[in-house]
Amino acid sequence: MTFDFKVADLSLAEAGRHQIRLAEHEMPGLMALRREFGDSQPLKGARIAGSLHMTVQTAVLIETLTALGAEVRWASCNIFSTQDEAAAAIVVGSGTADQPAGVPVFAWKNETLEEYWWTTTQILSWPGEHGPNMILDDGGDATLLVHKGVEFEAVGEVPAGPSEDDIDYSHEFSVVLDVLRGTLAEDPQKWTRIAADIKGVTEETTTGVMRLYQLAQQDKLLFPAINVNDSVTKSKFDNKYGIRHSLPDGLNRATDVLIGGKVVVVCGYGDVGKGAAEALRGQGGRVIVTEIDPICALQAAMDGYQVARLETVLAQGDIFITTTGNKDVIMAHHMAGMKHQAIVGNIGHFDNEIDIAGLAKTPGIRKVEIKPQVHEWVFPADEANGLAEHTIIMLSEGRLLNLGNATGHPSFVMSNSFANQTIAQIELFTKWNQNDLEGNREYANQVYVLPKILDEKVARLHLDAIGVELTELTKSQAEYLDVEASGPYKSDHYRY
Amino acid sequence: MTFDFKVADLSLAEAGRHQIRLAEHEMPGLMALRREFGDSQPLKGARIAGSLHMTVQTAVLIETLTALGAEVRWASCNIFSTQDEAAAAIVVGSGTADQPAGVPVFAWKNETLEEYWWTTTQILSWPGEHGPNMILDDGGDATLLVHKGVEFEAVGEVPAGPSEDDIDYSHEFSVVLDVLRGTLAEDPQKWTRIAADIKGVTEETTTGVMRLYQLAQQDKLLFPAINVNDSVTKSKFDNKYGIRHSLPDGLNRATDVLIGGKVVVVCGYGDVGKGAAEALRGQGGRVIVTEIDPICALQAAMDGYQVARLETVLAQGDIFITTTGNKDVIMAHHMAGMKHQAIVGNIGHFDNEIDIAGLAKTPGIRKVEIKPQVHEWVFPADEANGLAEHTIIMLSEGRLLNLGNATGHPSFVMSNSFANQTIAQIELFTKWNQNDLEGNREYANQVYVLPKILDEKVARLHLDAIGVELTELTKSQAEYLDVEASGPYKSDHYRY
Amino acid sequence: MTFDFKVADLSLAEAGRHQIRLAEHEMPGLMALRREFGDSQPLKGARIAGSLHMTVQTAVLIETLTALGAEVRWASCNIFSTQDEAAAAIVVGSGTADQPAGVPVFAWKNETLEEYWWTTTQILSWPGEHGPNMILDDGGDATLLVHKGVEFEAVGEVPAGPSEDDIDYSHEFSVVLDVLRGTLAEDPQKWTRIAADIKGVTEETTTGVMRLYQLAQQDKLLFPAINVNDSVTKSKFDNKYGIRHSLPDGLNRATDVLIGGKVVVVCGYGDVGKGAAEALRGQGGRVIVTEIDPICALQAAMDGYQVARLETVLAQGDIFITTTGNKDVIMAHHMAGMKHQAIVGNIGHFDNEIDIAGLAKTPGIRKVEIKPQVHEWVFPADEANGLAEHTIIMLSEGRLLNLGNATGHPSFVMSNSFANQTIAQIELFTKWNQNDLEGNREYANQVYVLPKILDEKVARLHLDAIGVELTELTKSQAEYLDVEASGPYKSDHYRY
Amino acid sequence: MTFDFKVADLSLAEAGRHQIRLAEHEMPGLMALRREFGDSQPLKGARIAGSLHMTVQTAVLIETLTALGAEVRWASCNIFSTQDEAAAAIVVGSGTADQPAGVPVFAWKNETLEEYWWTTTQILSWPGEHGPNMILDDGGDATLLVHKGVEFEAVGEVPAGPSEDDIDYSHEFSVVLDVLRGTLAEDPQKWTRIAADIKGVTEETTTGVMRLYQLAQQDKLLFPAINVNDSVTKSKFDNKYGIRHSLPDGLNRATDVLIGGKVVVVCGYGDVGKGAAEALRGQGGRVIVTEIDPICALQAAMDGYQVARLETVLAQGDIFITTTGNKDVIMAHHMAGMKHQAIVGNIGHFDNEIDIAGLAKTPGIRKVEIKPQVHEWVFPADEANGLAEHTIIMLSEGRLLNLGNATGHPSFVMSNSFANQTIAQIELFTKWNQNDLEGNREYANQVYVLPKILDEKVARLHLDAIGVELTELTKSQAEYLDVEASGPYKSDHYRY
Repeated sequence: MTFDFKVADLSLAEAGRHQIRLAEHEMPGLMALRREFGDSQPLKGARIAGSLHMTVQTAVLIETLTALGAEVRWASCNIFSTQDEAAAAIVVGSGTADQPAGVPVFAWKNETLEEYWWTTTQILSWPGEHGPNMILDDGGDATLLVHKGVEFEAVGEVPAGPSEDDIDYSHEFSVVLDVLRGTLAEDPQKWTRIAADIKGVTEETTTGVMRLYQLAQQDKLLFPAINVNDSVTKSKFDNKYGIRHSLPDGLNRATDVLIGGKVVVVCGYGDVGKGAAEALRGQGGRVIVTEIDPICALQAAMDGYQVARLETVLAQGDIFITTTGNKDVIMAHHMAGMKHQAIVGNIGHFDNEIDIAGLAKTPGIRKVEIKPQVHEWVFPADEANGLAEHTIIMLSEGRLLNLGNATGHPSFVMSNSFANQTIAQIELFTKWNQNDLEGNREYANQVYVLPKILDEKVARLHLDAIGVELTELTKSQAEYLDVEASGPYKSDHYRY
Repeated sequence: MTFDFKVADLSLAEAGRHQIRLAEHEMPGLMALRREFGDSQPLKGARIAGSLHMTVQTAVLIETLTALGAEVRWASCNIFSTQDEAAAAIVVGSGTADQPAGVPVFAWKNETLEEYWWTTTQILSWPGEHGPNMILDDGGDATLLVHKGVEFEAVGEVPAGPSEDDIDYSHEFSVVLDVLRGTLAEDPQKWTRIAADIKGVTEETTTGVMRLYQLAQQDKLLFPAINVNDSVTKSKFDNKYGIRHSLPDGLNRATDVLIGGKVVVVCGYGDVGKGAAEALRGQGGRVIVTEIDPICALQAAMDGYQVARLETVLAQGDIFITTTGNKDVIMAHHMAGMKHQAIVGNIGHFDNEIDIAGLAKTPGIRKVEIKPQVHEWVFPADEANGLAEHTIIMLSEGRLLNLGNATGHPSFVMSNSFANQTIAQIELFTKWNQNDLEGNREYANQVYVLPKILDEKVARLHLDAIGVELTELTKSQAEYLDVEASGPYKSDHYRY
Repeated sequence: MTFDFKVADLSLAEAGRHQIRLAEHEMPGLMALRREFGDSQPLKGARIAGSLHMTVQTAVLIETLTALGAEVRWASCNIFSTQDEAAAAIVVGSGTADQPAGVPVFAWKNETLEEYWWTTTQILSWPGEHGPNMILDDGGDATLLVHKGVEFEAVGEVPAGPSEDDIDYSHEFSVVLDVLRGTLAEDPQKWTRIAADIKGVTEETTTGVMRLYQLAQQDKLLFPAINVNDSVTKSKFDNKYGIRHSLPDGLNRATDVLIGGKVVVVCGYGDVGKGAAEALRGQGGRVIVTEIDPICALQAAMDGYQVARLETVLAQGDIFITTTGNKDVIMAHHMAGMKHQAIVGNIGHFDNEIDIAGLAKTPGIRKVEIKPQVHEWVFPADEANGLAEHTIIMLSEGRLLNLGNATGHPSFVMSNSFANQTIAQIELFTKWNQNDLEGNREYANQVYVLPKILDEKVARLHLDAIGVELTELTKSQAEYLDVEASGPYKSDHYRY
Repeated sequence: MTFDFKVADLSLAEAGRHQIRLAEHEMPGLMALRREFGDSQPLKGARIAGSLHMTVQTAVLIETLTALGAEVRWASCNIFSTQDEAAAAIVVGSGTADQPAGVPVFAWKNETLEEYWWTTTQILSWPGEHGPNMILDDGGDATLLVHKGVEFEAVGEVPAGPSEDDIDYSHEFSVVLDVLRGTLAEDPQKWTRIAADIKGVTEETTTGVMRLYQLAQQDKLLFPAINVNDSVTKSKFDNKYGIRHSLPDGLNRATDVLIGGKVVVVCGYGDVGKGAAEALRGQGGRVIVTEIDPICALQAAMDGYQVARLETVLAQGDIFITTTGNKDVIMAHHMAGMKHQAIVGNIGHFDNEIDIAGLAKTPGIRKVEIKPQVHEWVFPADEANGLAEHTIIMLSEGRLLNLGNATGHPSFVMSNSFANQTIAQIELFTKWNQNDLEGNREYANQVYVLPKILDEKVARLHLDAIGVELTELTKSQAEYLDVEASGPYKSDHYRY
């Protein structure tokens, strides 16, 4: 099960390097940070354990972190999302002055769950004296491993199975327990030692952030955290504009089905759902939204979409997409009632948005692989009820289809998200031991969002590349609005 | 200058009553509140001074407040925005059990500034022993009058002219000073007495809210305030969807100019600008956005709009619309450089978004009335620079064109805003003297927003009317998300 | 019943003149034709009887025709569509060298049917020796009157009522018979004499064109006709982009109802329906289309609209718009099944798209005027079936709502249509007695469309005004495409 | 250079068969024709030489033709467009009663030009006594080969190089001459013999149709032709909705570049350009259109796009797409003036829309393969003019990027086009020797379009699959419109 990209095919690495070079052009935020901080090396001394989809865009992030002085080890945060050529290129390095030596990467496309948690362990297990002192997380798996490790080391035992509380993390928690059982046997203070060194974590997603707030609320958070997800330039860009791009991309690569004229049911109308609906309508699809929040439901209606319960529209939908961040959104019995060859996919968060487990348990059902990440599930004929054999097409086995069936968000969007990550890493790493004016630690073991001025900075770094001319406030206008001419311009509760 | 709608033309009142009846159907939120609170009369004893555009929709609000037990006096908050038939109908009353007697209204279309501030004074000057005990405000003029009155009564003198600080309120501040000079001479404790009775104010707009936060920050706020503007169901609906409707409506009624194919420069890409841009694109206009905030500018670009400085696109624009909430956005020298017959209008806030004063001072300029609220300003030929005579078309003299040239936001949008207003009035009036768990006043002299669950309630009241089916969380889903199944569903910083 | 705008209120005329001046700026096609043909006076000697909505835009057309040398008499082609200020301004004249004397106009807002057919008679009844020698028609009523007059004069008798064949023209045909009975009594060769002088007719609409093709097919057409409706720059601009503008305009002025979030049923997806659907979606409406043509139905689906039968969606629709050019599209029994306060309007052609007659016959129904052209029809409660009293809102009594409730298409669109009309008038008037190469008359008593090069010319005249830069074909590119570099560029069957 | 898919990898064939099965669901028009004509076998005896992109969708077409009785040989009409798994599946056959044996296919991804024309020769060279008696063409290459073959056989000589007339066909014409030189040497009456047997050709594209009209005009067309391209259900669906889908798909698979916020220059606003612009705007791109036809240019402006000359916007564009059907649209000097890493692609017709030849001749230029069909062209630094080294990204070497970088149009769109093809094959094959009422051949050596009723039939076959409910005309409505209730519904010049 070991894997070493250090011996990776050099031609794969070369292909990845080309793509990285092209992506750099599309990631003006990260490149601007390299120019701004290349000399001052604010991440000198940082040892970052990164758990985030190992794509071409992440490669540009990794090389930005190292260009700012950091040491890095990397794993993907999803078993399907690695682009092998990007991983190979990072392992090999670019051969430039900036990236002479390459970076250890533990990630490949199509990992097993066991392999996945092994790679997550690897990025936290540094050779030599020192472990990592920073975590850069997406979904919170690295943070979870450390926290659970510390918890079990404290009691000296790993439980036999998930408890009532743990069960929510994910259905794969028993694999985590196996891993921790192994480390406890081998090195009973491993995670406690690692945790003590960590100055902070920066977290990318809604899901990971929710976990962090829960830990903080329970006073169990072991180090400060910056919630990158709720930067405007993350949540309103990655979640919305990224999905707008990568949802049809994933659908197309998976199925080549015309979206125009199709009835597409989008479950959820948060930022992800908004981007999904806009993309599908832009392709001529007829979008129907399901929602649980009356405000978002009213927004969907005002945007011209039908809003209905899933049950009402099961027989009309040609394509069903979950975007909720919730579980049990499309259940096996829903899928049994869909049209023949209805397409089902998830672009929200975990694969528990769709009840794959229930689907697999349907009596008589068969699963046929059309191509990797595209499976046809065949419901047997039900003669008692006069139903013919029919099928649904499941994308990426219910995991994120834009990563499993396509290449994830495009570079420009990720440049926004990753500029937030980079700035957050700098912020936590350089200020973790500072005190504020009242003598308190600047960053306690709580969850923070980036100050608005840094959020605006991230946006600012991306304007030139797409030809945006920004207007400047005059002095008297700034006074009239009671803001600085250089920002921040809005109150913290402003919604954009 | 006195005016009494009690003797208004009954046929005008009848026409208004028809429109009110139709509007009620489009205001399901207010009608639901009448059903919910009609029996319990939570506003019994409330004496509300209302300053808000006296339109058909406001008529439904007024009759909702009275149906919940309140006494009301009303003025418009804009000199052009009154619909006379609505005012007449309210003065006359509906003759039903709910509204037997009519409500005093001090408002008519096309007031002078002197008349305007006289009407604002009237709603605060109640006959008999008691003055008002609640303010319902839009733009903050009623609140301003009370605060300035108290301030000047404390020193026993009204200054000769606006001070450096006051100047920001508006260019019409000298009229306010005249009014207060009059009341000081007549009754030197008038405003102090009124202020002492007021339990709170609910405020509708961005501008008024900004004033309130400034007062609170300076510890000068005389009573609690609820910021209705920042309810999601207000700012994201009224500002965005309302403008989407009423901007093209105003343009069409004023000019009948085809929007399709035109270059339209929208200054500002906040909620109002977003609604404006969407409406104009939906009519085939080519929208160019100007912005000062890099985040909003990046949003505009991601939404497919060109983002440029006003100077860059002066010669291309056919129509220019300000939506900023700032001053000095389109200056006289800008207008001098526009195309012949360029159309200029404001849908943001005050008329100081457009430099009308500077325009009037342009040497040799002439102003021709095309029809009420539509004026052609004729720039003389400039032979030295080889420029021919050319004109611009100014809408509503720079004031809000959707109110001046059309009938403001449609009922359904206002039903959201006004349901917030009504709920906020109930909240402040019924809880103003309650203490919280720690013995402090529930509402201090600060600015509050409505709790999210009430915001969600407002949305919920509007779903049935447009056929929205809402999905309900299962118990286990709610636990997974760590929310109540009945809401609230989102964190306070969620942006929608 | 006589009416003479020569004594019209001069202030009305002045208001109209302002609007005409503004409209000229928006009608670059007509103004370019004045510049091109002002000197050569190609319509010198033309005596044009014009029957077309007497709006501000038509005023610019009339003055273009006179600027090119024509004498003109004008009536509206719809009883509701006249803008009185435009009519007054045309009657009074501009006082410039071009239009010193004014033009006889027989049109005012809100004519009765009897008045309407009287005005149509007037434009064909010229004082002095000569009658008209050209007809400019919209809907074909002037052409109908001449053809029916000639037909009845030939047999010396007007039938007592409409025959099986005539019934299709319109339900108002008995008024036409009355008029012709009068002229037959008074001057039994009136129409025969008039018809003999007429060199041709240019016709604006689908409906009028259909009548002309039927006459030509039956060899009954008395003079050549140019089908202006099927110029691309008419059918694809007026019908689509004009409606996109004027449909929401009419809805807004009539009802002020928010379109966002509403279910709008658009009957028909031809050019008018396409423009209607785009406009309503652009305002956040959810559009459902009904269609009889499978190709148009498939287009609607590909454009993302639900396509359903009217019966299926009666209970969902908030607004119903007919755009078909057919009759009996929305019947009384449909309206009986709609939601309370559903809005019903027609923007297709005649008022027979909606079954107003059947509606009026519904037992117990009441009609309440909300304001001019907006009526509420109250269906009585049906206790047997447990139905409460409910109402629908009918716009413009089923006639074209963009004309009845708003001001029709905007100037820029009409500039395209009217440039076609003007060029067609020149074409027929100057070539009616020419022979082609083989010695045949250039224009026989058939229906023609304008050659594509003239259609392209109309487009070309409108580009500069909206900043369009046109690319020119190189010589070798033109050869490659086998076209002239100056056009025409497409085959006759090209669909745009 | 020989190639035989009969020995193709069976697992490739199996993968293709899965995809064909899924595509069948998305091609309801073809499946309906199988049901309608499966028994009557109207193509029994037809020997069809097919030259059309060998994709999964074409596989469904091929198996529809064989299901209707035809024998078939197939080649692709583009060197890059073959999907090998589809070709393999067709060669192997499905093993069902319908397709027991497989069909000879001469096509693979990435052919050389020599290989390409060899495959085209193979589909016309049948084993045994009889050659093909029908051609199904896309782009006209099979038809070209036959016509040129006959022409040269008549004079007994193949010219040394392209003549002035031939040069227009394509820059690869010298390869054609080589092929024909070979066949002339081997069998000097080969093409004459083949042509004599051919009953007709059905042609798919604008380009091929233009060639056919030129041949017919010169009286050189050797057999009747049906212009499938100008069926509404082809030109308005494939060209517009197909491109709307496959353009962003191709861009995404090639580059993964975010379209949102980018300036995209679309050259041409015909049906292809309209679909392209809609797709890119739907993804948040800012589209600028270039046009030579004033009518299409005005349409683009009315649809809200900037219309400019290419030269004007060279420095602004991030992505440039040609859609014109013309040559020399983007020249080498244009590309030299673009932004660094500008993306250039063609989705119009031949690769001569973009001046690849000129690009390759640019002094000092280098071409770097990023991945197959994606090349970076590196312009050297120009120190004299102070220009840094910069690059452009060329997709599919200037050939159709939706085929080269993605999988072409999706199945549902192709079902429309291919239902037209199938119906046209039936029409020509079954009626080629019929006479009409006047004793003339039903189909002479001319170019025909399908009658409208068949065009409507194609649409009708696709409605059920996407849930469209069609309304039926009543008898009296049909009479009012003067059409049959069953169609056709529109005049031939109707533009949709």
